[in-house]
Amino acid sequence: MDERTLRTLLEQMQRGEMRVEEALAALRRLPFEDLGFARLDTHRGLRAGFPEVVYCEGKRPEQAAAMIARLAEGPGPVLGTRAVFEVYARVRAAMPAARYSDVARMVIVEREPLPKRPGTVLVICAGTADLPVAEEAALTAEVMGNHVERLVDVGVAGLHRLLAHVEQVQRATVLVVVAGMEGALPSVVGGLVRRPLIAVPTSVGYGASFGGLAALLAMLNSCAPGVTVVNIDNGFGAGYAASMINALAAEGQ
Amino acid sequence: MDERTLRTLLEQMQRGEMRVEEALAALRRLPFEDLGFARLDTHRGLRAGFPEVVYCEGKRPEQAAAMIARLAEGPGPVLGTRAVFEVYARVRAAMPAARYSDVARMVIVEREPLPKRPGTVLVICAGTADLPVAEEAALTAEVMGNHVERLVDVGVAGLHRLLAHVEQVQRATVLVVVAGMEGALPSVVGGLVRRPLIAVPTSVGYGASFGGLAALLAMLNSCAPGVTVVNIDNGFGAGYAASMINALAAEGQ
Amino acid sequence: MDERTLRTLLEQMQRGEMRVEEALAALRRLPFEDLGFARLDTHRGLRAGFPEVVYCEGKRPEQAAAMIARLAEGPGPVLGTRAVFEVYARVRAAMPAARYSDVARMVIVEREPLPKRPGTVLVICAGTADLPVAEEAALTAEVMGNHVERLVDVGVAGLHRLLAHVEQVQRATVLVVVAGMEGALPSVVGGLVRRPLIAVPTSVGYGASFGGLAALLAMLNSCAPGVTVVNIDNGFGAGYAASMINALAAEGQ
Amino acid sequence: MDERTLRTLLEQMQRGEMRVEEALAALRRLPFEDLGFARLDTHRGLRAGFPEVVYCEGKRPEQAAAMIARLAEGPGPVLGTRAVFEVYARVRAAMPAARYSDVARMVIVEREPLPKRPGTVLVICAGTADLPVAEEAALTAEVMGNHVERLVDVGVAGLHRLLAHVEQVQRATVLVVVAGMEGALPSVVGGLVRRPLIAVPTSVGYGASFGGLAALLAMLNSCAPGVTVVNIDNGFGAGYAASMINALAAEGQ
Amino acid sequence: MDERTLRTLLEQMQRGEMRVEEALAALRRLPFEDLGFARLDTHRGLRAGFPEVVYCEGKRPEQAAAMIARLAEGPGPVLGTRAVFEVYARVRAAMPAARYSDVARMVIVEREPLPKRPGTVLVICAGTADLPVAEEAALTAEVMGNHVERLVDVGVAGLHRLLAHVEQVQRATVLVVVAGMEGALPSVVGGLVRRPLIAVPTSVGYGASFGGLAALLAMLNSCAPGVTVVNIDNGFGAGYAASMINALAAEGQ
Amino acid sequence: MDERTLRTLLEQMQRGEMRVEEALAALRRLPFEDLGFARLDTHRGLRAGFPEVVYCEGKRPEQAAAMIARLAEGPGPVLGTRAVFEVYARVRAAMPAARYSDVARMVIVEREPLPKRPGTVLVICAGTADLPVAEEAALTAEVMGNHVERLVDVGVAGLHRLLAHVEQVQRATVLVVVAGMEGALPSVVGGLVRRPLIAVPTSVGYGASFGGLAALLAMLNSCAPGVTVVNIDNGFGAGYAASMINALAAEGQ
Amino acid sequence: MDERTLRTLLEQMQRGEMRVEEALAALRRLPFEDLGFARLDTHRGLRAGFPEVVYCEGKRPEQAAAMIARLAEGPGPVLGTRAVFEVYARVRAAMPAARYSDVARMVIVEREPLPKRPGTVLVICAGTADLPVAEEAALTAEVMGNHVERLVDVGVAGLHRLLAHVEQVQRATVLVVVAGMEGALPSVVGGLVRRPLIAVPTSVGYGASFGGLAALLAMLNSCAPGVTVVNIDNGFGAGYAASMINALAAEGQ
Amino acid sequence: MDERTLRTLLEQMQRGEMRVEEALAALRRLPFEDLGFARLDTHRGLRAGFPEVVYCEGKRPEQAAAMIARLAEGPGPVLGTRAVFEVYARVRAAMPAARYSDVARMVIVEREPLPKRPGTVLVICAGTADLPVAEEAALTAEVMGNHVERLVDVGVAGLHRLLAHVEQVQRATVLVVVAGMEGALPSVVGGLVRRPLIAVPTSVGYGASFGGLAALLAMLNSCAPGVTVVNIDNGFGAGYAASMINALAAEGQ
Repeated sequence: MDERTLRTLLEQMQRGEMRVEEALAALRRLPFEDLGFARLDTHRGLRAGFPEVVYCEGKRPEQAAAMIARLAEGPGPVLGTRAVFEVYARVRAAMPAARYSDVARMVIVEREPLPKRPGTVLVICAGTADLPVAEEAALTAEVMGNHVERLVDVGVAGLHRLLAHVEQVQRATVLVVVAGMEGALPSVVGGLVRRPLIAVPTSVGYGASFGGLAALLAMLNSCAPGVTVVNIDNGFGAGYAASMINALAAEGQ
Repeated sequence: MDERTLRTLLEQMQRGEMRVEEALAALRRLPFEDLGFARLDTHRGLRAGFPEVVYCEGKRPEQAAAMIARLAEGPGPVLGTRAVFEVYARVRAAMPAARYSDVARMVIVEREPLPKRPGTVLVICAGTADLPVAEEAALTAEVMGNHVERLVDVGVAGLHRLLAHVEQVQRATVLVVVAGMEGALPSVVGGLVRRPLIAVPTSVGYGASFGGLAALLAMLNSCAPGVTVVNIDNGFGAGYAASMINALAAEGQ
Repeated sequence: MDERTLRTLLEQMQRGEMRVEEALAALRRLPFEDLGFARLDTHRGLRAGFPEVVYCEGKRPEQAAAMIARLAEGPGPVLGTRAVFEVYARVRAAMPAARYSDVARMVIVEREPLPKRPGTVLVICAGTADLPVAEEAALTAEVMGNHVERLVDVGVAGLHRLLAHVEQVQRATVLVVVAGMEGALPSVVGGLVRRPLIAVPTSVGYGASFGGLAALLAMLNSCAPGVTVVNIDNGFGAGYAASMINALAAEGQ
Repeated sequence: MDERTLRTLLEQMQRGEMRVEEALAALRRLPFEDLGFARLDTHRGLRAGFPEVVYCEGKRPEQAAAMIARLAEGPGPVLGTRAVFEVYARVRAAMPAARYSDVARMVIVEREPLPKRPGTVLVICAGTADLPVAEEAALTAEVMGNHVERLVDVGVAGLHRLLAHVEQVQRATVLVVVAGMEGALPSVVGGLVRRPLIAVPTSVGYGASFGGLAALLAMLNSCAPGVTVVNIDNGFGAGYAASMINALAAEGQ
Repeated sequence: MDERTLRTLLEQMQRGEMRVEEALAALRRLPFEDLGFARLDTHRGLRAGFPEVVYCEGKRPEQAAAMIARLAEGPGPVLGTRAVFEVYARVRAAMPAARYSDVARMVIVEREPLPKRPGTVLVICAGTADLPVAEEAALTAEVMGNHVERLVDVGVAGLHRLLAHVEQVQRATVLVVVAGMEGALPSVVGGLVRRPLIAVPTSVGYGASFGGLAALLAMLNSCAPGVTVVNIDNGFGAGYAASMINALAAEGQ
Repeated sequence: MDERTLRTLLEQMQRGEMRVEEALAALRRLPFEDLGFARLDTHRGLRAGFPEVVYCEGKRPEQAAAMIARLAEGPGPVLGTRAVFEVYARVRAAMPAARYSDVARMVIVEREPLPKRPGTVLVICAGTADLPVAEEAALTAEVMGNHVERLVDVGVAGLHRLLAHVEQVQRATVLVVVAGMEGALPSVVGGLVRRPLIAVPTSVGYGASFGGLAALLAMLNSCAPGVTVVNIDNGFGAGYAASMINALAAEGQ
Repeated sequence: MDERTLRTLLEQMQRGEMRVEEALAALRRLPFEDLGFARLDTHRGLRAGFPEVVYCEGKRPEQAAAMIARLAEGPGPVLGTRAVFEVYARVRAAMPAARYSDVARMVIVEREPLPKRPGTVLVICAGTADLPVAEEAALTAEVMGNHVERLVDVGVAGLHRLLAHVEQVQRATVLVVVAGMEGALPSVVGGLVRRPLIAVPTSVGYGASFGGLAALLAMLNSCAPGVTVVNIDNGFGAGYAASMINALAAEGQ
Repeated sequence: MDERTLRTLLEQMQRGEMRVEEALAALRRLPFEDLGFARLDTHRGLRAGFPEVVYCEGKRPEQAAAMIARLAEGPGPVLGTRAVFEVYARVRAAMPAARYSDVARMVIVEREPLPKRPGTVLVICAGTADLPVAEEAALTAEVMGNHVERLVDVGVAGLHRLLAHVEQVQRATVLVVVAGMEGALPSVVGGLVRRPLIAVPTSVGYGASFGGLAALLAMLNSCAPGVTVVNIDNGFGAGYAASMINALAAEGQ
């Protein structure tokens, strides 16, 4: 029940077109859910720029494409994550403006890109095999209206590559650090910055990496304070959280 | 290589007492470590307000107290986490201004409290058994210069308790959500807000909670985007990260 | 040894056609298994409406179809769970009345549907990816003679969707709550009702969901009392248990 | 906001004592939480007979006793689970009618026992070491107003002991089956009955029992359909769920 | 229902003192359990020499001692496993003939030792830390009437110690091989013999031994065919199984 | 050092061509490895009837077939386990007498079947899905010269099926009990017999069966004494061990 | 800052074109990263003989081949590990001197083989199924300039095969011991030698081998001191570490 | 067969008192084990400097002390690891020259320290909590005749501390790197050196460190090639392996 309906009802009452009992009955039927919806949903207006997301893995391409198309009727950007090319092909047929990232395996549909807020989200990535997850984080943050920088292939076993970029690292507003195998990079980067750092373990590795468990546990046990962690391979979640934080930085309370 | 050595070298060159090749050779041997130390440490000045921390568990009370006392000679606040009362008793003997939180099991030593920045860190906690971890997060954020609000005992099996506070929840700048057992609270709260949310699993539970593993996995798999997670029972880490984010919100880039 | 045989033996004895020793020997040979079988099986008559089930995964379509066909010669309904379409195609060739649910991947063969008992089994499901498991539960309960309602896509990160249906939820006789990822929905629903609730973890998720382990552990640790749990993806088991409970409610002791 | 307040508001409008804008503002402030609370809480009245519970493990005896005492001011029964004797001693000092079960480690406070509803909850237990968990289930169900029968020490490696009681087993309305070690008993009992069966794994065992994990996994994988499972050692939860089901059986929809 | 009761009933029938219907009713009430008990228990007579066992861990000494004393009223030997000295002290007070093994932590009560059957059970043990488990196996087999030999401290990292005893090893009828840490000994011994070998993993070790899990997994994966495994630290189970096998060897089918 | 070398040395000594000291020195250098080989292998003669085995999974059909063919040149039987039909097709081309079991996925090559020793190996199997593993055990024991009986589909949730065969079960010399899911059958059968019982967990199941882990843990924790366990799906190992034990029973020490 | 910039600066100073303060300021801004790069990389010269490696699994053949080709432009050898034949086919098209090991699944590109240093790396392998991992280790060590010996199929269940080679084993400078299943071989070999031994668990096995976990845990718990371990199936890492150690032996400090 | 028996046999042959066939038969029975013992033990002489070790945890102080005392009668050094002070007190009573390290919890008994070989074992340690394990490694290597350097508290979250010592790190012959929590230090150090590096995970941490599992997995998955790993908290094993490697470096092949 939106406010207009409510106002109409009240005006009808005032004009004597509706009796108290009728109004009471109407209000009694006043769907809890709608009031609840309204109230809970006050933050929906605030969600401008927050993308709708379709997790495409395990869905058939036509299903995934249909879901993306339906969501794209709304005003905000739509992301299709873990999408094979065929999903994109089907989306593009209907919406030629759709984009596809081969690396991140993402389909992106946006009416027009959001203006970029100040601040920088820096996405750092240990090895080239971690790129799909890193790029998923980077694109998510970009679509949500952030400047994104990328720093690739700066694994901890070659510190000089990371140290060569220490100023860029320390300049970032929020950091997303992506690593598989032993997952040590967030700890090392976390020791160099005083900004929020979101660690993303990846399933890159074999044997005792146990599908990313080794990196996940390492990140949860990081000795660098202030490091927080998302699920294995969850580049989308990290980009989303980074954007939330950067928005705070740009817009204040 | 401190700056004096470098100046001497340059002056010798200027006086013609050293040739270019010699200076070049000397600079080439220029000790990485010292320059590195200086450079890496430029962010140390930025760390004002960042507490020094002593993790007291597994240390003897006199050891822990001595470490706290030594760090308290520095300018910043000092936290002793997981400290039994005896640690505090020993610290207080030397520093009467030290405080102790029985619930959070923390010793706090601060010259004078930092001024509070704008914004609010809201610490939410599912059950009373989770209070020690929640309070560790809350006190950490407070000591680091943040307004902290607490919302206690709003477990997901009694939604009305949480919903009664939905405005307070939506008003917070950063949220720390603490829960043991099934760890569902961060997902529910995460669906109500558009602000960064740090989830803290606790070891509260028994049987198939496996020391907090159930709550940890639940939080890592949260369907609410933007939720990030810290280690089991790591209230300190969550408070620290929340303060980093709130500082960004208050101070901008 | 059925009762008639026993009566005959006794009558022979009474007529003096059999001596005590002979009767004793006969009774001594009295097949344990048959009596046992008889006795244990007294509840078989009670099992009307209980379906026979063929778990088709890992079986070749022709094998699965043959097993279904053989069981369908009996009086009760037959379910083929986790059946690919080809299983159904083969069953249908022999039994045109067989039905197939594409979502639940189930083949259903029933002479004529059981009359529906009073009461409602409500199957709630967190996300569309959980639908196959939820529908398996719903169809199982329907085939066993229950009114079944479905409530789909009411994940905990969008509480308003669940709260919009709170009356339907509170009206149900038995609830089956299906969720993957963090598995929080049963705790939230369990806090809204005073009726038996069966929680079904699904393998929906990735990374640290570990094939449904995260949801399973969350449900076992639910803070909502009265929640019981079945195996990961076990929609059939949940529907079966819900039907047992609803039958009790309908028929009394 | 109760209905009278709402009616008064509407009548004031009708009488022209309140303008549309004022009414709108009042309705807009209409406290979500209170409506929500009221609505959500309609089932509170239904909860008569549902005990309040204090999980005493990890609490100091005086804390636990104080919590029990405070809850005992309400109308319903109060249970203190996993309570050492000293908790009881303190509770009894204030409330002489409190009872204590040494085996179940429970404190029970009830004004007057609830009348027993028809139907029987049968608690079966594999070994004497499982007794504390079984008795916690049994006492919980009793306090909630159910006739409870107990069947002890009928482990699967001595089938004759179980089979000697097959009629009692088949007569029960709801069954709670408690077992540690290999956790096989629920499968065996589940094959003998057509009634709801709640399986409770216990932490009884050593080595590869891994604190009850072996029994938990066995029960989740039970080949007897209709078996549902609660957390390791969660006698309270099983008793609570069994009572919910038996109440349905007694009272219908 | 013992045979005498049955005979009486039949004789009453023969004498015309009981009608067919009466007899039928009596037989219909013929307790399943008793017949079942009788039938199932035909092997009880065969169990001479099979000890009754009390697992004392987690029981209070007076409880454990009382259970041992009660069982010792029967004809067979009684074992108290994982018994502290105080259990023994209490048992001895009542039964001076009771024995105690400090190493195996076992209390043994036997009227008179069973005569030893031919054949040898050889208990081999990798390190001295494994001795308690090995001795539990050895004593169990001895009490059950077997000649037992012991071979201690023949870990795989000092092969010469094992090889020095290769003939003794190859002469044994059944082998029990006990090892913690990497659990490699059963594979090595299994390659030297053609006789049944029961492997017992122990919880000896630290770190990644995970309470015996490493040894357990190693033994389950043994490349020596014919190796079977019991639970971690289950010396009793291994000794019991070895005795079963040796009895077969001694007595034939 | 082969025997010829040794004989030559001794003959030289006898002819006075070599002095004691020289011979001693030569013998002192006597290669450990060769003698060792000879000695260790004295038990090879004892291994008559022990099959050579090729584990075919993960090998290409032509590789597996070649290995089987090479081993079949020796005197004993050869088993190819986990062999697809194509392996058999290739083996048969060279050795027309080879046999194939579709159920057990085994290739069997034996010159002429070994005579059967007395005693019976009884292979029991909970569900039809466990048949491949059960049949692998049965065929292994048969090839090794044992009478084998099979008892299929006697899961614990339908006890009457098992109890109908209790005499056959109690008559067996050695039992192999195969079960997936909750793995309860060995405990139930183990309580009915006094003979050695080898439990085989299978990977049959889904969800929290974790590839057979649930059944494995259940069997390791069996409350029936004397149960020993082999690796998940290791029908071959169980059949081998059962044959070892039956051979002891047949041949004595 | 490359050396030319530094030289220019110094020459300006020498020519009096720049004052000490200016130079100091310039040097103070001297980019950490570049100097750091230089310094950290001083050991790069030392890395002659250290191969560049491309882990090919999960890469498309053309990607993997392109990466190998690009690295092969450098002076050192290049290894492509876990490479299918098609990777090699593509590499060979561009670089005809490339080699391929079918067993180790490795592509090797080296300008000319490094001269072999003294000492021997002995690679021992339990079963033929472990050969791919063992050969990866062996080839890696060979390419890095070591004499490599191989000892295959010396599993612990056939000790005589290992003991026949005890002198070869004791003569090796460094040992790499590869085993799957129960992973016992490193403990046995470790007891025979006083030289560094690197253990490599493989994923060979099934059921409770859990993808190599059983072997990994066994090796970590080895009772043979001095055994160190690498990741499951990490033949490359073991060969690399062995080469490092052998180089130390050959070249001293 | 000792040498005297062999000599007698040969002399009998020489005197013609024994024929070739007889001698051959006697030699054929020549006990494997004794010769084997001799032969296998030829490397025992090589073991000079290798300590005997008593793992004291879980042993009573008097037991541990007695074992240390008995081993100290031999020529080599003796280490008691994980020894409480009381073990030392008892050892010292008998051997005043025994030493004790409070940090490493080690008792050391050596006649006279071994001369130090060239080369350096560098033990690096992430945090002060890791010191006991690091010191156990350091003292083990020292007792075995190595120069040992220590570098403490150089965790990866404060890279400047590590980089300040990069030359010391690169100068070491062998490195032992000890770390708990996320276990990242070996990867970082491994990227700075070209020497063998042994990583030691410790159980330092809480929550998702799972007793050192997080650090262990991280180290096994290290992206720095050439890193090998020992068991959690196994400082002794790391020191031992490092000494083996340094000895090779010092002494060559």
